[in-house]
Amino acid sequence: MNAEKIPDIIIGRLPIYLRALQRLAEKGVHNTSSQELGEMIGISAAQIRKDISQFGEFGKQGTGYSVPFLIERLQDILKVNRVWDVIIVGMGDMGHALARYNGFVNRGYQVTMLFDNDPAKIGQKVNNLEIFSTDVLVEKVKQNKIKIAMLTVPASAAQEVADLLVKAGIKAILNYAPIHLNVPKDVQVQHIDPAAHLQRMTYYL
Amino acid sequence: MNAEKIPDIIIGRLPIYLRALQRLAEKGVHNTSSQELGEMIGISAAQIRKDISQFGEFGKQGTGYSVPFLIERLQDILKVNRVWDVIIVGMGDMGHALARYNGFVNRGYQVTMLFDNDPAKIGQKVNNLEIFSTDVLVEKVKQNKIKIAMLTVPASAAQEVADLLVKAGIKAILNYAPIHLNVPKDVQVQHIDPAAHLQRMTYYL
Repeated sequence: MNAEKIPDIIIGRLPIYLRALQRLAEKGVHNTSSQELGEMIGISAAQIRKDISQFGEFGKQGTGYSVPFLIERLQDILKVNRVWDVIIVGMGDMGHALARYNGFVNRGYQVTMLFDNDPAKIGQKVNNLEIFSTDVLVEKVKQNKIKIAMLTVPASAAQEVADLLVKAGIKAILNYAPIHLNVPKDVQVQHIDPAAHLQRMTYYL
Repeated sequence: MNAEKIPDIIIGRLPIYLRALQRLAEKGVHNTSSQELGEMIGISAAQIRKDISQFGEFGKQGTGYSVPFLIERLQDILKVNRVWDVIIVGMGDMGHALARYNGFVNRGYQVTMLFDNDPAKIGQKVNNLEIFSTDVLVEKVKQNKIKIAMLTVPASAAQEVADLLVKAGIKAILNYAPIHLNVPKDVQVQHIDPAAHLQRMTYYL
């Protein structure tokens, strides 16, 4: 396997497979098939088999996939066989919701620091985490070697804060602001944009 | 143009083009090129030209695209040349954040009704909207002919509520619960799953 050669579109589907497999594991299911997975997530069985086979021979003709084994392999591939520290910058409604979100458990992430530039919010606690000033962001992120940030500031402030994140050594930004961020090539950005998801569905209405 | 024949993956990129174009319009930019758009959103200029050309000849060699014209055409195609009513079911942290979110303005949606099954929340107001009991969801959604819902209930309740949404005539569900929903073929589901987005980036760290 040469990780460099796996197309990004396949990498983007692996978290969806992992999510479905973890759901099966929670239900006590030990074996599954590409057909069953496909029905769960709306991706063809052939596509799933092809994607997974990029990383090795994990399934057996006739018996399918071992759920715990495939979970473990996907966690290895996606590097979530550990827990990554994540910061949240922007403690408005969305920042608060993410700080209290329990959906990161068992998926490889924990929110460990919160930042805002509003003096009224700095020092407050959300989910037992203190909100720090963005003035100390670079220092604290570097100290703790944190690589991942969720950006929940208003669009007008997003680029400025992104520059700060880059300076702090952040390499992956989950961007909730509906604007494009200019960052160096070695920094990844993913968008969460509910309006864009809605638009994709409205087309078919 | 035959809408039936446009691949879903292209439809999925149109909201990203529209978001970038609206951002340009806000900055007062009247003309753009596939190159400029491509740099803004990290999609190749050739891909953008190819995608947009599926719907007609909107650009001119040498002068590029008219920003207001292309915005209008994309809004037509995505059917967001109107404002769709949207309900939120599940008024926890995420439901609250979405009810107060100002990112739907100018993008084709407005949140008009909120629902929860917690007696302590029913009757409260968020962003001037009253929280109704899920007991009256089917009735109210049918009455108002609402087709779009955001689902922000816990994973354990998501399928049950999804069944209710289907019964009420909802045809598009933005699902914040990290589980697959079983719905009829004419109901669309999109996921918002921050952990999956983070995993996609962690692969490259």
